Amino acid sequence: MSCTLQLPDGWKPVASPPSLFRRYEFGSYAETREFLDRLALLSEETRIYPDLGFARTYVNVTLRGPGGGMPGPAEVEFACRAATMAVAGLP
Amino acid sequence: MSCTLQLPDGWKPVASPPSLFRRYEFGSYAETREFLDRLALLSEETRIYPDLGFARTYVNVTLRGPGGGMPGPAEVEFACRAATMAVAGLP
Repeated sequence: MSCTLQLPDGWKPVASPPSLFRRYEFGSYAETREFLDRLALLSEETRIYPDLGFARTYVNVTLRGPGGGMPGPAEVEFACRAATMAVAGLP
Repeated sequence: MSCTLQLPDGWKPVASPPSLFRRYEFGSYAETREFLDRLALLSEETRIYPDLGFARTYVNVTLRGPGGGMPGPAEVEFACRAATMAVAGLP
């Protein structure tokens, strides 16, 4: 899967507050943690830190734009790379 | 700090849904991740998986009781050990 400037499957734009959202579900806590660890590396690389909500088998990812504004191309690319990571983490 | 059956400082019982809550704030993403990693080990040991919400410099911890019921002594002990970890993680 390559990352173009298009919101990946399952991601939804949210109007208020302006953001991009997707929930990822996993079969185990180990998979959930693996995905979170990959997201952490992506955040360190991109300096984009989404709001993350998670428990044992899910992760909710909310991407806001810079300064709380509209998400832009950088956030769409983050979403796309996150989607790739979630796919890679599943059997 | 030892862990007795008493809710540690800053933790609040929440009525609906019945849970224990505390927000932890950190000075950096590295400290936030360190705390999350410690919580993950605690979850694997105790089999208690709180709802966690976080971004770059905060972590919100919500502990529900078994089956969504009232939090009991196991959740209070989890809160206390989490509090210890947060203290240990700060300079």
